[in-house]
Amino acid sequence: MKIFMTTVWALAVALSASSQEALWQGPQIVSPQVNADTTVTFRIYAPEARNVQISGDFLTPGRHVTAKGDTVQTAGVMELKRGDDGLWTYTSTQLAPELYTYHYIVDGMRVDDPSNVYRMRDVSTVSDFFIVPGGRADLYTVRDVPHGALTRLWYKSPTAGTDRRMTVYTPAGYFTGNTAYPVLYLLHGMGGDEEAWPALGRVAPILDNLIAEGRAVPMIVVMTNGNISQKGAPGEAADGMAQPSFDMPRTMNGEFEKSFPDVVKFMDSNFRTIPDKAHRAIAGLSMGGFHACVISATYPDAFDYVGLFSAAVRPEKFSQSEFYNGFDNKLTAQFAHRPRLYWIGIGRDDFLYDANKEYRKQLDSRGYPYEYMETYGGHTWRNWRVYLTEFAQKLFKD
Amino acid sequence: MKIFMTTVWALAVALSASSQEALWQGPQIVSPQVNADTTVTFRIYAPEARNVQISGDFLTPGRHVTAKGDTVQTAGVMELKRGDDGLWTYTSTQLAPELYTYHYIVDGMRVDDPSNVYRMRDVSTVSDFFIVPGGRADLYTVRDVPHGALTRLWYKSPTAGTDRRMTVYTPAGYFTGNTAYPVLYLLHGMGGDEEAWPALGRVAPILDNLIAEGRAVPMIVVMTNGNISQKGAPGEAADGMAQPSFDMPRTMNGEFEKSFPDVVKFMDSNFRTIPDKAHRAIAGLSMGGFHACVISATYPDAFDYVGLFSAAVRPEKFSQSEFYNGFDNKLTAQFAHRPRLYWIGIGRDDFLYDANKEYRKQLDSRGYPYEYMETYGGHTWRNWRVYLTEFAQKLFKD
Repeated sequence: MKIFMTTVWALAVALSASSQEALWQGPQIVSPQVNADTTVTFRIYAPEARNVQISGDFLTPGRHVTAKGDTVQTAGVMELKRGDDGLWTYTSTQLAPELYTYHYIVDGMRVDDPSNVYRMRDVSTVSDFFIVPGGRADLYTVRDVPHGALTRLWYKSPTAGTDRRMTVYTPAGYFTGNTAYPVLYLLHGMGGDEEAWPALGRVAPILDNLIAEGRAVPMIVVMTNGNISQKGAPGEAADGMAQPSFDMPRTMNGEFEKSFPDVVKFMDSNFRTIPDKAHRAIAGLSMGGFHACVISATYPDAFDYVGLFSAAVRPEKFSQSEFYNGFDNKLTAQFAHRPRLYWIGIGRDDFLYDANKEYRKQLDSRGYPYEYMETYGGHTWRNWRVYLTEFAQKLFKD
Repeated sequence: MKIFMTTVWALAVALSASSQEALWQGPQIVSPQVNADTTVTFRIYAPEARNVQISGDFLTPGRHVTAKGDTVQTAGVMELKRGDDGLWTYTSTQLAPELYTYHYIVDGMRVDDPSNVYRMRDVSTVSDFFIVPGGRADLYTVRDVPHGALTRLWYKSPTAGTDRRMTVYTPAGYFTGNTAYPVLYLLHGMGGDEEAWPALGRVAPILDNLIAEGRAVPMIVVMTNGNISQKGAPGEAADGMAQPSFDMPRTMNGEFEKSFPDVVKFMDSNFRTIPDKAHRAIAGLSMGGFHACVISATYPDAFDYVGLFSAAVRPEKFSQSEFYNGFDNKLTAQFAHRPRLYWIGIGRDDFLYDANKEYRKQLDSRGYPYEYMETYGGHTWRNWRVYLTEFAQKLFKD
């Protein structure tokens, strides 16, 4: 019996050096801890630190002076308090249901929470995250409902002249059934890639939950990479493992839009889609909204549902590429084909608010119908999750 | 023109607060930087730190005294040197081609490299990683070859009485073709889950590269979750977002093995598999080797290829569950069915080395044929990537 237990114990602890270290560093630290009253407690073991702060999107934003002396807008910052045991702690005020991101600042240095394995990459920055349950946040939470699948795969783009990577959400039952589904094409913003919507946008839980509740019809969601100079997300294509950056890529010059029929053809050829306009939607955030706006107008027979989330509308304002000449004529053609839904969502503090206001005026003046949602806040994933939630419920129900 | 540029610039920088912060924190820090001579330079901006160290699996291991006074074995540790600008730097010796993991220790606190977005979770610990190219490491690197797909999906396990999550690698061409493929079932170790092999095991690049070079035949790889009390990896099932831990789960009691036919049936029903023994392999590391050993012996008609990687062989030594009674008879039945390949790989420093030696003696004494690979090192992912690489090349070629 003793030999048996010893052997099993040896097996249990024979993990990588770093896991062993985590195990042996004294009592396990729980952080973040979402408390019953919706306050959240953060803890970090930093025995020698002089100052430990937390920065997160649940704190009141402020201004921060960088090492170079520039004053920049930052997320809010609060101080943690040191315990005698070297454990620093901060408990937040009561937080509304939401997905929140944060990191620590220890003696002026950015530090991820070593006790939190739940992280998201946003362009070139990794953040820790947690969810305060309730309300909308329950849609962002993995619940005990039938789950769809996420597939990362490569498609041939003859127009781009290369293979490119995409992420495809297929609803629960796709792999075991024979049903054909409508498709939502969902596009990311500048600096993003085909991993942005699945991670920061919580696409799988949102769709799983909406479908399970009968609030959205089962659909496929296709998340492409809108930067045509990039075959796939950082680390996923044969271009090394450098820190992601965005240097005005080949992305608002018409190339992605011209290559988009490759995406639709790939899906219609290789997945069980319903390959017609009535069963196709396209939406995007920021630059992805620009792409959705242009693609849907360029191919007016392709998409019956269009979603512009904090979108860089009025393409001629954002790019000098000839491809965007005559956009107004395209828009005329698009509305002559009567899309079933043209949906616009934007936050009151968004720097694109005025551009969207102008665009809505333009649509109004021509009598083009659209639906409009205005929210608090700015150009944030918090808003984009809300817009996806609202938009997805309006699709393919006619 | 000026208005145009301003608007585009606003769009480019209108990212989340944390991304902005990363952008504005002065010159971008490149870390790690793999130099042409295969030394690697690490950098971290920590202006107020008194001591910055790096711990990684490329450094000579040593011993470390914890805050509680316990002496534990750790990965090696080296000191970084502070520059006048608050940037700390360390350049390694020349490193052999390999995938390496590391983290910083700043004033006694574990810190991930904020300049490196490439991270891997091993059970409850997130580590930064990088690849020094050349040799075997080129197999772990994403190269410009046809890429397979990775699908995270859920299958119904009537035996376990629940839906469970799995990761499926399908080779390049799967989604665009009609070919049926052989299947490798690939099992993780204790504390791991269906994300362990795809992340730490680099399954997609290894298979993509071996197949592209003609060294392995195109195959499907199925990565399950061997802990029957867990439906999916941390954060992927409806059991919250706690820090992953392993508390002797329901995993070496026969339940997973009894439910394994559900996995094979699901794959044979819903993927284009070649559903016979000659086109099925099963392999696993550590506890997954235990599972592969038991499953292949319990269903002697199911798998023609068996791989035991640093395996907890001789199940009766590791579990008192009745399910493992009579394992020797099962083994007899398995070898009576003549598996085409029974493959064992282990490192000389592995704590399971002696158990494997005993097991080989047992096989030898009965005249059961097997292939054997002995490597340097211990119970590490470095070895398991090597074993997968070797094993995959031997499959389905008869």
